[in-house]
Amino acid sequence: MPDYNPLPLLQAAEQFAKLPGIGMKTAQRLAYYMLNMPLEEVEEFSETILAARKSVKCCKVCQNFTESDICGVCGDTRRDHGVICVVEAPKDVSAFERTGGYNGVYHVLHGLLSPMENIGPNDIRIKELLSRLSGDVDEVIMATNPTVEGEATATYISRLIKPLGIKVTRLAYGLPVGSALEYADDVTLQRALENRNEL
Amino acid sequence: MPDYNPLPLLQAAEQFAKLPGIGMKTAQRLAYYMLNMPLEEVEEFSETILAARKSVKCCKVCQNFTESDICGVCGDTRRDHGVICVVEAPKDVSAFERTGGYNGVYHVLHGLLSPMENIGPNDIRIKELLSRLSGDVDEVIMATNPTVEGEATATYISRLIKPLGIKVTRLAYGLPVGSALEYADDVTLQRALENRNEL
Repeated sequence: MPDYNPLPLLQAAEQFAKLPGIGMKTAQRLAYYMLNMPLEEVEEFSETILAARKSVKCCKVCQNFTESDICGVCGDTRRDHGVICVVEAPKDVSAFERTGGYNGVYHVLHGLLSPMENIGPNDIRIKELLSRLSGDVDEVIMATNPTVEGEATATYISRLIKPLGIKVTRLAYGLPVGSALEYADDVTLQRALENRNEL
Repeated sequence: MPDYNPLPLLQAAEQFAKLPGIGMKTAQRLAYYMLNMPLEEVEEFSETILAARKSVKCCKVCQNFTESDICGVCGDTRRDHGVICVVEAPKDVSAFERTGGYNGVYHVLHGLLSPMENIGPNDIRIKELLSRLSGDVDEVIMATNPTVEGEATATYISRLIKPLGIKVTRLAYGLPVGSALEYADDVTLQRALENRNEL
Protein backbone atom coordinates (compact mmCIF):
# COMPACT_ATOMS: atom_id res chain seq x y z
CA MET A 1 0.00 0.00 0.00
CA PRO A 2 1.70 3.23 -1.07
CA ASP A 3 1.51 6.18 1.31
CA TYR A 4 -0.50 8.88 -0.41
CA ASN A 5 0.76 11.62 1.88
CA PRO A 6 2.93 14.05 -0.10
CA LEU A 7 6.62 13.72 0.83
CA PRO A 8 7.04 17.36 2.00
CA LEU A 9 4.23 16.78 4.50
CA LEU A 10 6.03 13.76 5.95
CA GLN A 11 9.29 15.72 6.03
CA ALA A 12 7.64 18.58 7.90
CA ALA A 13 6.16 16.10 10.38
CA GLU A 14 9.61 14.57 10.93
CA GLN A 15 10.96 18.00 11.82
CA PHE A 16 8.23 18.58 14.40
CA ALA A 17 8.84 15.11 15.84
CA LYS A 18 12.41 16.14 16.69
CA LEU A 19 11.08 18.54 19.33
CA PRO A 20 10.82 17.29 22.92
CA GLY A 21 7.45 15.90 24.01
CA ILE A 22 6.13 15.77 20.43
CA GLY A 23 5.51 12.27 19.12
CA MET A 24 4.93 11.26 15.50
CA LYS A 25 1.14 11.53 15.86
CA THR A 26 1.23 15.09 17.18
CA ALA A 27 3.94 15.99 14.66
CA GLN A 28 1.66 14.91 11.79
CA ARG A 29 -1.20 16.91 13.26
CA LEU A 30 1.03 19.99 13.42
CA ALA A 31 2.28 19.45 9.85
CA TYR A 32 -1.30 19.16 8.54
CA TYR A 33 -2.23 22.30 10.46
CA MET A 34 0.75 24.16 9.04
CA LEU A 35 -0.32 23.35 5.48
CA ASN A 36 -3.65 25.03 6.11
CA MET A 37 -2.07 28.20 7.51
CA PRO A 38 -1.70 31.27 5.25
CA LEU A 39 1.72 31.29 3.57
CA GLU A 40 2.72 34.58 5.24
CA GLU A 41 2.14 33.08 8.69
CA VAL A 42 4.27 30.05 7.90
CA GLU A 43 6.99 32.35 6.61
CA GLU A 44 6.81 34.39 9.80
CA PHE A 45 6.97 31.20 11.91
CA SER A 46 9.94 29.86 10.00
CA GLU A 47 11.87 33.14 9.98
CA THR A 48 11.21 34.10 13.60
CA ILE A 49 12.51 30.81 14.93
CA LEU A 50 15.64 30.86 12.80
CA ALA A 51 16.27 34.50 13.70
CA ALA A 52 15.91 33.70 17.40
CA ARG A 53 18.41 30.86 17.15
CA LYS A 54 20.86 33.13 15.32
CA SER A 55 20.58 36.23 17.51
CA VAL A 56 20.51 34.64 20.96
CA LYS A 57 23.84 33.69 22.55
CA CYS A 58 25.10 32.93 26.03
CA CYS A 59 26.09 35.70 28.45
CA LYS A 60 29.88 35.69 28.87
CA VAL A 61 29.49 35.87 32.64
CA CYS A 62 26.50 33.79 33.70
CA GLN A 63 25.90 31.75 30.50
CA ASN A 64 22.20 32.69 30.42
CA PHE A 65 20.62 33.41 27.03
CA THR A 66 21.01 37.02 25.90
CA GLU A 67 21.23 39.13 22.77
CA SER A 68 24.30 41.06 23.93
CA ASP A 69 27.66 39.92 25.33
CA ILE A 70 26.58 40.51 28.92
CA CYS A 71 22.98 39.78 29.98
CA GLY A 72 20.63 42.21 31.71
CA VAL A 73 21.14 40.68 35.14
CA CYS A 74 24.94 40.58 35.01
CA GLY A 75 25.04 44.14 33.68
CA ASP A 76 22.75 45.47 36.43
CA THR A 77 24.85 47.25 39.08
CA ARG A 78 21.90 47.40 41.51
CA ARG A 79 22.01 43.62 41.91
CA ASP A 80 24.15 41.85 44.48
CA HIS A 81 27.02 40.28 42.55
CA GLY A 82 28.28 38.60 45.72
CA VAL A 83 25.51 35.98 45.61
CA ILE A 84 25.39 33.50 42.70
CA CYS A 85 22.38 31.25 42.19
CA VAL A 86 23.40 28.16 40.17
CA VAL A 87 20.64 26.68 37.98
CA GLU A 88 20.35 23.99 35.35
CA ALA A 89 18.74 25.98 32.52
CA PRO A 90 17.71 29.48 31.38
CA LYS A 91 14.06 28.71 32.17
CA ASP A 92 15.01 28.37 35.84
CA VAL A 93 16.32 31.94 35.80
CA SER A 94 12.91 33.07 34.53
CA ALA A 95 11.26 31.16 37.37
CA PHE A 96 13.35 32.98 40.00
CA GLU A 97 12.88 36.34 38.29
CA ARG A 98 9.11 35.84 38.34
CA THR A 99 9.16 35.54 42.15
CA GLY A 100 10.72 39.01 42.30
CA GLY A 101 12.36 37.99 45.58
CA TYR A 102 15.95 37.42 44.46
CA ASN A 103 18.43 40.24 43.99
CA GLY A 104 21.65 38.30 43.36
CA VAL A 105 23.02 37.04 40.04
CA TYR A 106 22.86 33.62 38.34
CA HIS A 107 24.96 30.95 36.75
CA VAL A 108 23.37 28.67 34.15
CA LEU A 109 24.98 25.21 33.87
CA HIS A 110 23.10 24.21 30.69
CA GLY A 111 22.67 20.68 31.95
CA LEU A 112 23.22 18.42 34.95
CA LEU A 113 25.82 15.74 35.61
CA SER A 114 24.45 12.40 34.46
CA PRO A 115 26.74 9.37 34.17
CA MET A 116 23.83 7.44 32.61
CA GLU A 117 23.70 9.90 29.70
CA ASN A 118 27.47 10.35 29.58
CA ILE A 119 27.31 13.96 30.75
CA GLY A 120 30.41 14.75 32.80
CA PRO A 121 31.78 17.92 34.47
CA ASN A 122 33.30 19.16 31.20
CA ASP A 123 29.96 18.94 29.37
CA ILE A 124 28.24 21.57 31.54
CA ARG A 125 29.41 25.10 32.42
CA ILE A 126 31.22 24.31 35.70
CA LYS A 127 34.62 25.76 34.89
CA GLU A 128 32.91 29.02 33.85
CA LEU A 129 31.36 29.08 37.34
CA LEU A 130 34.70 28.44 39.09
CA SER A 131 36.37 31.23 37.11
CA ARG A 132 33.82 33.68 38.57
CA LEU A 133 34.61 32.85 42.20
CA SER A 134 36.90 35.74 43.07
CA GLY A 135 37.13 37.27 46.53
CA ASP A 136 33.94 39.29 45.96
CA VAL A 137 31.64 36.28 46.04
CA ASP A 138 30.09 35.56 49.46
CA GLU A 139 27.63 32.79 48.69
CA VAL A 140 26.79 30.26 46.00
CA ILE A 141 23.22 28.95 46.11
CA MET A 142 22.83 25.52 44.49
CA ALA A 143 19.37 25.75 42.88
CA THR A 144 19.35 22.63 40.70
CA ASN A 145 16.20 20.50 40.65
CA PRO A 146 15.47 18.15 43.56
CA THR A 147 16.15 15.09 41.40
CA VAL A 148 18.94 12.51 41.49
CA GLU A 149 20.94 14.40 38.83
CA GLY A 150 20.20 17.76 40.45
CA GLU A 151 21.38 16.52 43.84
CA ALA A 152 24.52 14.90 42.44
CA THR A 153 25.43 18.05 40.53
CA ALA A 154 24.86 20.25 43.59
CA THR A 155 27.01 17.98 45.75
CA TYR A 156 29.78 17.77 43.15
CA ILE A 157 29.99 21.53 42.68
CA SER A 158 29.77 22.29 46.40
CA ARG A 159 32.81 20.06 47.01
CA LEU A 160 34.77 22.12 44.49
CA ILE A 161 33.73 25.44 45.99
CA LYS A 162 33.91 24.81 49.76
CA PRO A 163 37.75 24.61 49.84
CA LEU A 164 37.77 28.18 48.49
CA GLY A 165 36.14 29.33 51.71
CA ILE A 166 32.92 30.45 50.02
CA LYS A 167 29.55 29.65 51.62
CA VAL A 168 27.55 27.11 49.58
CA THR A 169 23.83 26.70 50.26
CA ARG A 170 21.03 24.53 48.85
CA LEU A 171 17.36 25.35 48.26
CA ALA A 172 15.09 24.17 51.11
CA TYR A 173 13.06 20.98 50.84
CA GLY A 174 9.57 20.92 52.30
CA LEU A 175 5.88 20.96 51.57
CA PRO A 176 4.83 22.90 48.47
CA VAL A 177 2.73 25.91 49.50
CA GLY A 178 -0.97 25.22 49.03
CA SER A 179 -0.54 21.45 48.93
CA ALA A 180 -2.07 18.89 51.31
CA LEU A 181 -0.11 16.83 53.83
CA GLU A 182 -1.84 13.62 52.81
CA TYR A 183 -0.56 13.87 49.24
CA ALA A 184 3.08 14.60 50.15
CA ASP A 185 5.48 11.74 49.45
CA ASP A 186 7.36 10.20 52.38
CA VAL A 187 10.75 11.74 51.62
CA THR A 188 9.34 15.24 51.23
CA LEU A 189 7.34 14.92 54.46
CA GLN A 190 10.40 13.66 56.33
CA ARG A 191 12.47 16.59 55.05
CA ALA A 192 9.71 19.03 56.01
CA LEU A 193 9.76 17.60 59.54
CA GLU A 194 13.56 17.67 59.84
CA ASN A 195 13.79 21.24 58.61
CA ARG A 196 10.91 22.56 60.72
CA ASN A 197 11.11 26.20 61.82
CA GLU A 198 10.17 27.82 65.11
CA LEU A 199 7.02 29.95 64.99
CA MET B 1 10.34 43.66 37.36
CA PRO B 2 11.74 43.57 33.83
CA ASP B 3 11.62 40.27 31.94
CA TYR B 4 15.18 39.15 31.42
CA ASN B 5 14.28 36.72 28.65
CA PRO B 6 15.73 37.94 25.35
CA LEU B 7 13.04 39.26 23.00
CA PRO B 8 13.78 36.77 20.15
CA LEU B 9 13.17 33.92 22.59
CA LEU B 10 9.75 35.32 23.49
CA GLN B 11 8.98 35.85 19.80
CA ALA B 12 9.91 32.25 18.99
CA ALA B 13 7.71 31.04 21.84
CA GLU B 14 4.81 33.11 20.50
CA GLN B 15 5.17 31.39 17.14
CA PHE B 16 5.04 27.94 18.71
CA ALA B 17 2.02 28.97 20.78
CA LYS B 18 0.09 29.60 17.55
CA LEU B 19 0.08 25.86 16.84
CA PRO B 20 -2.93 23.82 17.99
CA GLY B 21 -2.62 22.10 21.36
CA ILE B 22 0.50 24.06 22.31
CA GLY B 23 0.01 26.48 25.19
CA MET B 24 2.37 29.28 26.26
CA LYS B 25 4.21 27.02 28.73
CA THR B 26 4.97 24.30 26.17
CA ALA B 27 5.80 26.97 23.58
CA GLN B 28 8.44 28.44 25.89
CA ARG B 29 9.89 24.99 26.50
CA LEU B 30 10.12 24.40 22.75
CA ALA B 31 11.72 27.82 22.20
CA TYR B 32 14.35 27.14 24.89
CA TYR B 33 15.03 23.74 23.37
CA MET B 34 15.40 25.26 19.90
CA LEU B 35 18.05 27.69 21.17
CA ASN B 36 20.14 24.75 22.35
CA MET B 37 19.90 22.91 19.03
CA PRO B 38 22.78 23.13 16.53
CA LEU B 39 22.24 25.98 14.07
CA GLU B 40 22.15 23.61 11.07
CA GLU B 41 19.28 21.65 12.61
CA VAL B 42 17.26 24.80 13.24
CA GLU B 43 17.91 25.87 9.66
CA GLU B 44 16.74 22.48 8.41
CA PHE B 45 13.62 22.69 10.59
CA SER B 46 12.78 26.18 9.42
CA GLU B 47 13.42 25.48 5.73
CA THR B 48 11.67 22.10 5.60
CA ILE B 49 8.45 23.47 7.03
CA LEU B 50 8.37 26.48 4.75
CA ALA B 51 9.20 24.31 1.73
CA ALA B 52 6.37 21.92 2.64
CA ARG B 53 3.89 24.77 2.87
CA LYS B 54 5.05 26.10 -0.49
CA SER B 55 5.14 22.84 -2.44
CA VAL B 56 1.97 21.18 -1.19
CA LYS B 57 -1.31 22.17 -2.81
CA CYS B 58 -4.83 20.75 -3.05
CA CYS B 59 -5.72 18.10 -5.65
CA LYS B 60 -7.96 19.71 -8.29
CA VAL B 61 -10.37 16.77 -8.05
CA CYS B 62 -10.56 15.59 -4.44
CA GLN B 63 -8.96 18.60 -2.65
CA ASN B 64 -6.55 16.34 -0.73
CA PHE B 65 -2.96 17.58 -0.24
CA THR B 66 -0.66 16.71 -3.12
CA GLU B 67 2.46 17.98 -4.85
CA SER B 68 1.00 17.67 -8.34
CA ASP B 69 -2.27 18.95 -9.85
CA ILE B 70 -3.98 15.58 -9.42
CA CYS B 71 -3.25 13.42 -6.35
CA GLY B 72 -2.09 9.79 -6.42
CA VAL B 73 -5.53 8.41 -5.56
CA CYS B 74 -7.44 10.44 -8.15
CA GLY B 75 -4.83 9.60 -10.81
CA ASP B 76 -4.98 5.87 -10.08
CA THR B 77 -7.08 4.14 -12.76
CA ARG B 78 -7.23 0.89 -10.75
CA ARG B 79 -9.37 2.58 -8.11
CA ASP B 80 -13.15 2.73 -8.27
CA HIS B 81 -14.00 6.31 -9.22
CA GLY B 82 -17.71 5.56 -8.79
CA VAL B 83 -17.46 5.63 -4.98
CA ILE B 84 -16.52 8.86 -3.21
CA CYS B 85 -15.68 8.89 0.48
CA VAL B 86 -16.26 12.38 1.92
CA VAL B 87 -13.99 13.31 4.84
CA GLU B 88 -13.26 16.39 6.91
CA ALA B 89 -9.48 16.57 6.53
CA PRO B 90 -6.46 15.08 4.71
CA LYS B 91 -5.49 13.11 7.82
CA ASP B 92 -8.75 11.17 7.51
CA VAL B 93 -7.68 10.02 4.03
CA SER B 94 -4.48 8.66 5.59
CA ALA B 95 -6.55 6.80 8.18
CA PHE B 96 -8.62 5.06 5.49
CA GLU B 97 -5.56 4.31 3.35
CA ARG B 98 -3.89 2.68 6.36
CA THR B 99 -6.77 0.21 6.64
CA GLY B 100 -6.02 -0.92 3.07
CA GLY B 101 -9.68 -1.89 2.76
CA TYR B 102 -11.00 0.95 0.62
CA ASN B 103 -10.63 1.07 -3.15
CA GLY B 104 -12.75 4.09 -4.01
CA VAL B 105 -11.72 7.75 -4.15
CA TYR B 106 -12.06 10.62 -1.66
CA HIS B 107 -13.30 14.14 -1.26
CA VAL B 108 -11.73 16.35 1.41
CA LEU B 109 -14.01 19.09 2.75
CA HIS B 110 -11.26 20.93 4.70
CA GLY B 111 -13.62 21.62 7.57
CA LEU B 112 -17.11 20.95 8.87
CA LEU B 113 -20.20 23.13 8.98
CA SER B 114 -20.28 24.96 12.30
CA PRO B 115 -22.70 27.83 12.87
CA MET B 116 -21.01 28.48 16.24
CA GLU B 117 -17.71 29.22 14.49
CA ASN B 118 -19.36 30.93 11.53
CA ILE B 119 -18.38 28.17 9.09
CA GLY B 120 -21.06 27.86 6.42
CA PRO B 121 -21.45 25.76 3.24
CA ASN B 122 -19.32 28.19 1.21
CA ASP B 123 -16.38 27.92 3.64
CA ILE B 124 -15.77 24.22 3.01
CA ARG B 125 -15.33 22.38 -0.30
CA ILE B 126 -18.96 21.36 -0.88
CA LYS B 127 -19.44 22.89 -4.34
CA GLU B 128 -16.26 21.11 -5.50
CA LEU B 129 -17.91 17.85 -4.38
CA LEU B 130 -21.17 18.59 -6.19
CA SER B 131 -19.31 19.39 -9.40
CA ARG B 132 -17.85 15.86 -9.34
CA LEU B 133 -21.24 14.14 -9.19
CA SER B 134 -21.65 13.16 -12.83
CA GLY B 135 -23.50 10.05 -13.98
CA ASP B 136 -20.47 7.86 -13.22
CA VAL B 137 -20.79 8.19 -9.46
CA ASP B 138 -22.76 5.38 -7.78
CA GLU B 139 -22.25 6.12 -4.10
CA VAL B 140 -21.14 8.89 -1.78
CA ILE B 141 -19.99 7.72 1.65
CA MET B 142 -20.28 10.40 4.34
CA ALA B 143 -17.26 9.71 6.54
CA THR B 144 -17.19 12.82 8.72
CA ASN B 145 -16.49 12.41 12.46
CA PRO B 146 -19.33 11.18 14.73
CA THR B 147 -19.60 14.60 16.38
CA VAL B 148 -22.35 17.23 16.27
CA GLU B 149 -20.60 19.12 13.45
CA GLY B 150 -19.75 15.91 11.60
CA GLU B 151 -23.37 14.73 11.78
CA ALA B 152 -24.77 18.08 10.70
CA THR B 153 -22.39 18.29 7.75
CA ALA B 154 -23.21 14.72 6.65
CA THR B 155 -26.93 15.42 6.84
CA TYR B 156 -26.62 18.73 5.00
CA ILE B 157 -24.60 17.26 2.13
CA SER B 158 -26.75 14.14 1.84
CA ARG B 159 -29.83 16.35 1.34
CA LEU B 160 -28.08 18.05 -1.57
CA ILE B 161 -27.01 14.78 -3.19
CA LYS B 162 -30.05 12.53 -2.76
CA PRO B 163 -32.22 14.46 -5.28
CA LEU B 164 -29.56 13.61 -7.91
CA GLY B 165 -30.44 9.93 -7.50
CA ILE B 166 -27.06 8.98 -6.08
CA LYS B 167 -26.84 6.61 -3.11
CA VAL B 168 -25.58 8.34 0.04
CA THR B 169 -24.32 6.24 2.97
CA ARG B 170 -22.92 6.95 6.43
CA LEU B 171 -20.21 5.13 8.39
CA ALA B 172 -21.61 2.63 10.89
CA TYR B 173 -21.87 3.43 14.59
CA GLY B 174 -21.13 0.72 17.11
CA LEU B 175 -18.67 -0.63 19.65
CA PRO B 176 -15.01 0.05 18.88
CA VAL B 177 -13.23 -3.26 18.19
CA GLY B 178 -11.27 -4.41 21.24
CA SER B 179 -13.21 -2.20 23.65
CA ALA B 180 -15.31 -3.32 26.62
CA LEU B 181 -19.10 -3.06 26.84
CA GLU B 182 -18.98 -1.58 30.32
CA TYR B 183 -16.98 1.44 29.11
CA ALA B 184 -19.17 2.23 26.11
CA ASP B 185 -21.27 5.37 26.46
CA ASP B 186 -25.07 5.04 26.36
CA VAL B 187 -25.57 6.47 22.88
CA THR B 188 -22.92 4.24 21.32
CA LEU B 189 -24.32 1.16 23.03
CA GLN B 190 -27.84 2.02 21.89
CA ARG B 191 -26.62 2.45 18.29
CA ALA B 192 -24.73 -0.84 18.48
CA LEU B 193 -27.93 -2.56 19.60
CA GLU B 194 -30.09 -0.91 16.92
CA ASN B 195 -27.65 -1.77 14.15
CA ARG B 196 -27.05 -5.35 15.27
CA ASN B 197 -26.23 -7.87 12.51
CA GLU B 198 -27.33 -11.46 12.11
CA LEU B 199 -24.61 -14.02 12.76
